[in-house]
Amino acid sequence: MKGELLYEGKAKRVYQAEDKPGQLVLAYKDDVTAFNGEKKDTLPGKARLNNAISSHVFQELHERGIRTHFIKKLSATEQLVHQSDIIPLEVVVRNTAAGSMVRRLGIEPKTALTPPVIELFYKNDVLGDPLINDDHALLLSDVMYEDLNAIKAQALEVNRQLIDLFTASGIELVDFKLEFGRVASGNIVLADEISPDTCRLWDIETRENLDKDVYRQGTGDLLEVYEKLMTRLEAAL
Amino acid sequence: MKGELLYEGKAKRVYQAEDKPGQLVLAYKDDVTAFNGEKKDTLPGKARLNNAISSHVFQELHERGIRTHFIKKLSATEQLVHQSDIIPLEVVVRNTAAGSMVRRLGIEPKTALTPPVIELFYKNDVLGDPLINDDHALLLSDVMYEDLNAIKAQALEVNRQLIDLFTASGIELVDFKLEFGRVASGNIVLADEISPDTCRLWDIETRENLDKDVYRQGTGDLLEVYEKLMTRLEAAL
Ligand SMILES: Nc1ncnc2c1ncn2[C@@H]1O[C@H](COP(=O)(O)OP(=O)(O)OP(=O)(O)O)[C@@H](O)[C@H]1O
Ligand SMILES: Nc1ncnc2c1ncn2[C@@H]1O[C@H](COP(=O)(O)OP(=O)(O)OP(=O)(O)O)[C@@H](O)[C@H]1O
Ligand SMILES: [Mg+2]
Ligand SMILES: [Mg+2]
Repeated sequence: MKGELLYEGKAKRVYQAEDKPGQLVLAYKDDVTAFNGEKKDTLPGKARLNNAISSHVFQELHERGIRTHFIKKLSATEQLVHQSDIIPLEVVVRNTAAGSMVRRLGIEPKTALTPPVIELFYKNDVLGDPLINDDHALLLSDVMYEDLNAIKAQALEVNRQLIDLFTASGIELVDFKLEFGRVASGNIVLADEISPDTCRLWDIETRENLDKDVYRQGTGDLLEVYEKLMTRLEAAL
Repeated sequence: MKGELLYEGKAKRVYQAEDKPGQLVLAYKDDVTAFNGEKKDTLPGKARLNNAISSHVFQELHERGIRTHFIKKLSATEQLVHQSDIIPLEVVVRNTAAGSMVRRLGIEPKTALTPPVIELFYKNDVLGDPLINDDHALLLSDVMYEDLNAIKAQALEVNRQLIDLFTASGIELVDFKLEFGRVASGNIVLADEISPDTCRLWDIETRENLDKDVYRQGTGDLLEVYEKLMTRLEAAL
């Protein structure tokens, strides 16, 4: 199924799909990193969990009318997606104040953000993925003003659908990061992954972390937490 | 003329105007600071120059239809302005890439920015005046969406008028910082100062600095440079 290795990231390897032009195999890795790669581990089982969770979430979003790159889950650790030109923006949606937003802006942690706050970061490892505004995004990426508005509207719609999905499992969607890409048709679709690596997810009652923050903060066992999350999502099916 | 001292900043003292409720005396200081106060000097004559330059620029903007806090120059180092509730945003307009934008985003220095780029910074010394986006501004200040759009439109109009003004003196307006405040009527007006402390100004031909960068970078005598700028602005009257 896998052709040429196109790109190896921190969390996934990206292969050309054999005999399927315009399609890619995303192969999840067992690696976990934090603080721009300063903290780093290999946790056997993480690839399987993130692939299962992200496949489940993308399948749900597809059924709820969101245009995504996702085609299907191929194996325990792999999925088939439409190849896209990734727009070099990380689109963050925040429903509750946490993480870098709290640190940068001095906002009280856990402040409810209504309406949700959207942040754009310039996807550039050398520069440390800096926060940018819309004018910067228009300058640094090849998106037009209308594309940017469409991407934000799309991000807010994803937020509504994810809140619905996670609430059914007793989970609070605190914030998450999306990437968008342009597929062959020119359409912009939701790409990359949606997993506990890219979301902040809290138990609705106890507000305990069900995401990568347990690894960042060293407050829990990542594999146990991701497994628990997967079980809770499946229980709501 | 001066009543109670309300506030002492790095560059100005702000006094209640005696017997004139709703009016303030801005008294410029000879102090100069850079890098968040790390570099610091007193340069006798700076107050007079910045008061003269800022008064001249505000008078010009007023005549060109911009609503400002400026009433009149009172003395060599003082001016009378309308009191306002300063909106805690620094509004930066950039026509040419320089300074923090170049460092944060890896943009080639001196890149022409068309259309101009607007940046908002949260006026908060403790947090180091961080860059913010529109969603943050709505969250952190009491401005509404419509106010924010009006402020940006106003900033771009100020930019057009300042380009016109400085070009007449052979000066390139690279970037500048504005502050806006709400006056008693509820209207939002241009406040604070417009001076070589708050603008990047380059000679159009040689691109030598005619602004505080000579102090930041230690490449020239601030008083000489500000005096030269003032002379060039007056010559174009
Ligand atoms: N549909 C797609 N088409 C093309 N590339 C994709 C697609 N979906 C995801 N990618 C890209 O796959 C790469 C590998 O993913 P991974 O999460 O490992 O990257 P990363 O180490 O986080 O690096 P990055 O900072 O680029 O995200 C990323 O650059 C991601 O943008
Ligand atoms: N019309 C006005 N009404 C009320 N305050 C004003 C007005 N114009 C300017 N100010 C305020 O006067 C203060 C003193 O100016 P100065 O430039 O010395 O401050 P600063 O040290 O740069 O501090 P800041 O970070 O608050 O700008 C500033 O807080 C500025 O916002
Ligand atoms: Mg990634
Ligand atoms: Mg100031």
